[in-house]
Amino acid sequence: MAKVTNISGFPEYLPEERIVEEHILRTIGDIFRLHGFASMETPSVELVSTLTQKGVAEKEIYTLRRLRDEGDTEAELGLHFDLTVPFARYVAQHLSRLSFPFRRSCYQKVWRGERPQKGRYREFGQFDIDIVARDTLPISADAEVVTVIAKAFSQLAIVRAELRINNRKILLGMYDSLGIGESRRGEVVRIVDKLDKIGPDGVRKELSEGEGLGSEQIDRILAWSTLKAPAAGAREMLEGLAIENETFQRGVQELVEVLELVPPAARDIITVSLSLARGLDYYTGTIFEVVLPDYPHFGSVSAGGRYDDLTAQFLPGQRLPAVGGSIGVSRLMGLILERELMPMHRQCPSRLLLTIHSEDSRVRVNEWAERFRAKCVPTEVYFKPAKLGKQIEYANAKGIRFAGFMNEESGEIEIKDLKEQHQGPLGDLDEWIATNRASLFD
Amino acid sequence: MAKVTNISGFPEYLPEERIVEEHILRTIGDIFRLHGFASMETPSVELVSTLTQKGVAEKEIYTLRRLRDEGDTEAELGLHFDLTVPFARYVAQHLSRLSFPFRRSCYQKVWRGERPQKGRYREFGQFDIDIVARDTLPISADAEVVTVIAKAFSQLAIVRAELRINNRKILLGMYDSLGIGESRRGEVVRIVDKLDKIGPDGVRKELSEGEGLGSEQIDRILAWSTLKAPAAGAREMLEGLAIENETFQRGVQELVEVLELVPPAARDIITVSLSLARGLDYYTGTIFEVVLPDYPHFGSVSAGGRYDDLTAQFLPGQRLPAVGGSIGVSRLMGLILERELMPMHRQCPSRLLLTIHSEDSRVRVNEWAERFRAKCVPTEVYFKPAKLGKQIEYANAKGIRFAGFMNEESGEIEIKDLKEQHQGPLGDLDEWIATNRASLFD
Repeated sequence: MAKVTNISGFPEYLPEERIVEEHILRTIGDIFRLHGFASMETPSVELVSTLTQKGVAEKEIYTLRRLRDEGDTEAELGLHFDLTVPFARYVAQHLSRLSFPFRRSCYQKVWRGERPQKGRYREFGQFDIDIVARDTLPISADAEVVTVIAKAFSQLAIVRAELRINNRKILLGMYDSLGIGESRRGEVVRIVDKLDKIGPDGVRKELSEGEGLGSEQIDRILAWSTLKAPAAGAREMLEGLAIENETFQRGVQELVEVLELVPPAARDIITVSLSLARGLDYYTGTIFEVVLPDYPHFGSVSAGGRYDDLTAQFLPGQRLPAVGGSIGVSRLMGLILERELMPMHRQCPSRLLLTIHSEDSRVRVNEWAERFRAKCVPTEVYFKPAKLGKQIEYANAKGIRFAGFMNEESGEIEIKDLKEQHQGPLGDLDEWIATNRASLFD
Repeated sequence: MAKVTNISGFPEYLPEERIVEEHILRTIGDIFRLHGFASMETPSVELVSTLTQKGVAEKEIYTLRRLRDEGDTEAELGLHFDLTVPFARYVAQHLSRLSFPFRRSCYQKVWRGERPQKGRYREFGQFDIDIVARDTLPISADAEVVTVIAKAFSQLAIVRAELRINNRKILLGMYDSLGIGESRRGEVVRIVDKLDKIGPDGVRKELSEGEGLGSEQIDRILAWSTLKAPAAGAREMLEGLAIENETFQRGVQELVEVLELVPPAARDIITVSLSLARGLDYYTGTIFEVVLPDYPHFGSVSAGGRYDDLTAQFLPGQRLPAVGGSIGVSRLMGLILERELMPMHRQCPSRLLLTIHSEDSRVRVNEWAERFRAKCVPTEVYFKPAKLGKQIEYANAKGIRFAGFMNEESGEIEIKDLKEQHQGPLGDLDEWIATNRASLFD
């Protein structure tokens, strides 16, 4: 007998949970589509040589091997660990057949060969958008990505979301103004990024012992790292720092422009946060992440930013600036399931179960089912002529709202609303649908 | 510089091709949903011990290994090679939390570790439905699966489809009536299944030399294998064989019942074909496949049937009969692309491009875009204030039907239909949408 067991890190959902996941995917997908982002997929695998470029070798990459390997010499294949490296390869490969700016959306699984550990995913779904242009991509693209991501969380309406934003140039300029040169800035940012984890004393220790910064420099850095402001107060806060540094000023200008282009509804959930760093080796301008104020220890559920040259590793010399964002769908699902944040009363799409009294009437009941389906009502017919109570029990167990009964003589249908517990003749089909629209298509 | 190259067997689509794939997935998914099949997914991996059960070890299974393997002793993981083995494991694992009959639909990628070879997929998408019950599952479930699969091809309306159907009991009974016992029947069927490939002489040779059948037995088998009839003529054809065998009679009875339950539209594309065998070790009753009469050498694009006990390998002693079908989406895409069977004039979902004259007006143009999106019109705003001709060129390249121009003084919108080449004021938004519904939501 084969084992049946969950494999740690590979989430699997029950039907009622999957309905929630599909709702999330549809909500996000609809917003991305309404903004004109073209759906895209790449294979699950890339050449390992593609995946290990650019110092990501430390990532745990899963490689594929045939169970009965015959020692052939084919190039090694690995499962992608994010959606950005494959996107860069895709753009480089199909450059001449794409129209720019290329705006893509992509929902796919990604894999990370982590050790089995509670809460650590080894397969998870991400929903990304990116805009990539040739030569130049104005800052308005950053604003659009931020807007669309903010809109997704606002329409999902599952938890309160806060979109934290910063600009890499602001950070670089700040450190520059303290005399911290390019060679050390990356490491300094990585240390400051750990503020939430190791606290100010830990950061102080590492900056002092590891990087040899003086106490005045460290005081400044720590003071800056706590600075936050709502979108409307960003300019004032940043100008108040009075940092006379060109890179810093450019970063402030970009950030302010992004905030001005974001519509009010999205702006309301934005906080400018100078502690936000998000892997400096990658982003070059705007950076952002989405956190959930009601679950402060949960970490970010979305992140993104501007990167100066998407395809640098594939097409050196060509310039393709890009900006993108990613929503961690599996992470969000994990929170929803753990905290029971969404109702899960339906196990299937059916809104109507047509009961069946005898096999002789199945063809006629099927014809009724087709009439409902033609009006977009997901409908099923019970699988065998069982006692009525058993058929209703099935509908209740699956969260099917309505049950229908065909009178075998007249061929007419009675409908019972299993929630409101009232029953009556169907009457005119279109009218019935209009009356019950909210329960049929919610 | 990293290589950018397609990896053989891992299909990847351009945006305009992906739109076709999404259309196919949406069409099939909608039909499955309207019939109440619950969407389901399993992880991409299973324990290798799950995948290699039941004599499928000969399949080329991809196993996962971490790139920097530290020699840990974790159970081996493999990518699934179909959607049925994971489904069986899922049902066995979550038995107590599922309501039966459990009706599932599932679109996922599957992987096969084939050697690189033209036209051979190593990653491909399948869309499956299955119905599984506890203890008994009436024949009407077989009819429903056949109906839904037939309906999917009819609504896809890409190529003419023929659904070939047979019943394993008919085959078993026929061979039984020739004195070919259980131990040899599987092999005989596998040989007859090669009729299209090796021709009648090849089959005759293998049945004679390999299986030791006499020439009278072989003549009969070859004669039966050519029998075909439309759904309406099935009973007459089968009764005409006058085979007095209980298993055969039961098979005929089941097949006739399925055909009677299938609605006329689906019945029209059905052919009863006694040569159809489809891996006898697996199916136990109804078997079917979908072929494309206009592409006779392309093989089947869908297949399915009844299997007596889905979870036998996991829950011996419990009985869970099932019936299912699978549509080979990647295979279908391969044909569509090769034969150019679908128009591919759109590279993105946008139906309207709002042009931009200067950055100063972007916020106001964005507000217009939101009004169109609120009415479900996928809309984008051009990324920079370029010459109008350049912006229109972008819309044409991407297949965006309409362009909109905001008058910076009045704030009013003019719309140009880029296909019909006429232009005029937007007027009332709802009226404009109603007038252009067919071009906005096709």
